[in-house]
Amino acid sequence: MSEKKTTNIILFSGDYDKAMAAYIIANGAAAYDHDVTIFHTFWGLNALRKDEQIPVQKGFVEKMFSRMMPRGADKMALSKMNFAGFGPKMIKGVIKKHNAMTLPQLVEMAQEQDIKLVACTMTMDLLGLQKEELLDGVEYAGVAAYLADAENGNVNLFI
Amino acid sequence: MSEKKTTNIILFSGDYDKAMAAYIIANGAAAYDHDVTIFHTFWGLNALRKDEQIPVQKGFVEKMFSRMMPRGADKMALSKMNFAGFGPKMIKGVIKKHNAMTLPQLVEMAQEQDIKLVACTMTMDLLGLQKEELLDGVEYAGVAAYLADAENGNVNLFI
Amino acid sequence: MSEKKTTNIILFSGDYDKAMAAYIIANGAAAYDHDVTIFHTFWGLNALRKDEQIPVQKGFVEKMFSRMMPRGADKMALSKMNFAGFGPKMIKGVIKKHNAMTLPQLVEMAQEQDIKLVACTMTMDLLGLQKEELLDGVEYAGVAAYLADAENGNVNLFI
Repeated sequence: MSEKKTTNIILFSGDYDKAMAAYIIANGAAAYDHDVTIFHTFWGLNALRKDEQIPVQKGFVEKMFSRMMPRGADKMALSKMNFAGFGPKMIKGVIKKHNAMTLPQLVEMAQEQDIKLVACTMTMDLLGLQKEELLDGVEYAGVAAYLADAENGNVNLFI
Repeated sequence: MSEKKTTNIILFSGDYDKAMAAYIIANGAAAYDHDVTIFHTFWGLNALRKDEQIPVQKGFVEKMFSRMMPRGADKMALSKMNFAGFGPKMIKGVIKKHNAMTLPQLVEMAQEQDIKLVACTMTMDLLGLQKEELLDGVEYAGVAAYLADAENGNVNLFI
Repeated sequence: MSEKKTTNIILFSGDYDKAMAAYIIANGAAAYDHDVTIFHTFWGLNALRKDEQIPVQKGFVEKMFSRMMPRGADKMALSKMNFAGFGPKMIKGVIKKHNAMTLPQLVEMAQEQDIKLVACTMTMDLLGLQKEELLDGVEYAGVAAYLADAENGNVNLFI
C-alpha cells in the first residue's frame, strides 16, 4: 500500500453544477498530490460522452436514453434554476467573467493530471452507452473495483 | 474493534435510481466482506415501506405525507427523466433485459447478506411513519448510532 | 495531529431538508466530541445568508442570482414535494409539533457548539455573494483548505 493519500469520488449526478463540484475537488486533490479516481455511474456517465454523435447499434429504449441524455459535459443542465437552459448560460457567463474553468476544461485538466476517470460498466449497459461514445482514456470497471480503491481511501464522496 | 472493513451509507434520497446505487454499493461491499449499514433518513425511509396499506392512527399532516410518499421501493420515482412515471418503466425494462436486479430485489438481497438496515427514528417521527409500516427486520436508531458506526468506517457515503 | 475524531461535511445543496440533515449530523458529531466543519459551496451558501437585504454593489447577472436564490436558511425549499412552498410549511409544522429544531435553530446551535462554518470563496465569486451578506462568524476558504481537513477526517460527506 502506498503512502499517498487517495480521493475517490462517485459521480452519480448528471447536473452541470454537481459535476463541476466533483471535478474541482478532484483537480484540487490531484494538485495536493492525492491519487484521485472519479467513478462515473448513472447520469454522471454523461460527463464522459463525446459531443459528436457516434454511429452505434442500439435497441429502442437505449436509443431513447441516448437522445434524451446530454451528449457531453458542456450540454449538462443545472440542478437548480435551470430555467430551460438559461441557468447554465448564466453560470457559463460568470465562469468566463471570473476566469474560472468550464466543466469541459475541468475534465481536460483532470486527464492532464492523470486522474483516473472510470465508467461504470453495469450502468453503461443499463443506459445503452457504448465505449465508442465515451472520451478516449476512460477506464471501464464495476463496483468491486470502486470498493477496492475506496476501502483504503482518505476522502470518499458520493456526488 | 474488529479488523473487518466497514461501509456506512446514509440513504436520504427517495429516488429509485439513487436508492439502486446505494443498494448496489452496499451489496457489493457485503460480498467484499465489509460490515455494511444503510441508515435510512427522510425520503430514503420510503425504500423500507411495505407495499400494502397498514392501518395506523395518524394526524392530518402525517396522513398527507403518507399518501403523497411512495409506498415501498418499487414505487419510487427517478431523480432524472421521470416523465410522470414513464422513466421508471424504462429503467425497469432495461433492468429486466440485462438481467440486472430491481430495487426490491436489491433490498431483499441486502437482508439476506445481513446488511444492517436502519430507520432514522427522528425523521420517522417528522414524516409520521410508524414501525408497523416498515419491513420486518429493520432496526431503529438515531444520529448517535450512525456516528458511532461511521467514525471508524472505511467507506462513508451520503446518497 | 490531534487524537480528536473529525467530521467534514460539504454542503452543496440549497434544499431545506438536505441542509437540515447536514446540520443534524454536524450537531450530533459535535455533541459526540468531534471537530466538525461544514464547507458551504454553490447553493449551500444560501444557508449562511442573512435574511435582510444587504446593500452591496453587484453586476447584472450577480444581481439576478441574488434575487432568485433564497435569502437565508428559513427560505430554502424542499428537495421533494415542495409544492410551491407548501411542503416547507408542512415540514415546519411537524418540526414544531414534535419539538424538533428548525434549520435556523440548527445553524445557531452549530455556532454555539463551535462548528466551523466555512463559505467557499470561489463559488461566492461565481454567484456574486459578498461577505457582508453572510452571517457573522463564518470563515472563508477554498478547496485546498477543505482537503487539508478532509484527508485526515473520519466522517466525510457530500450533501
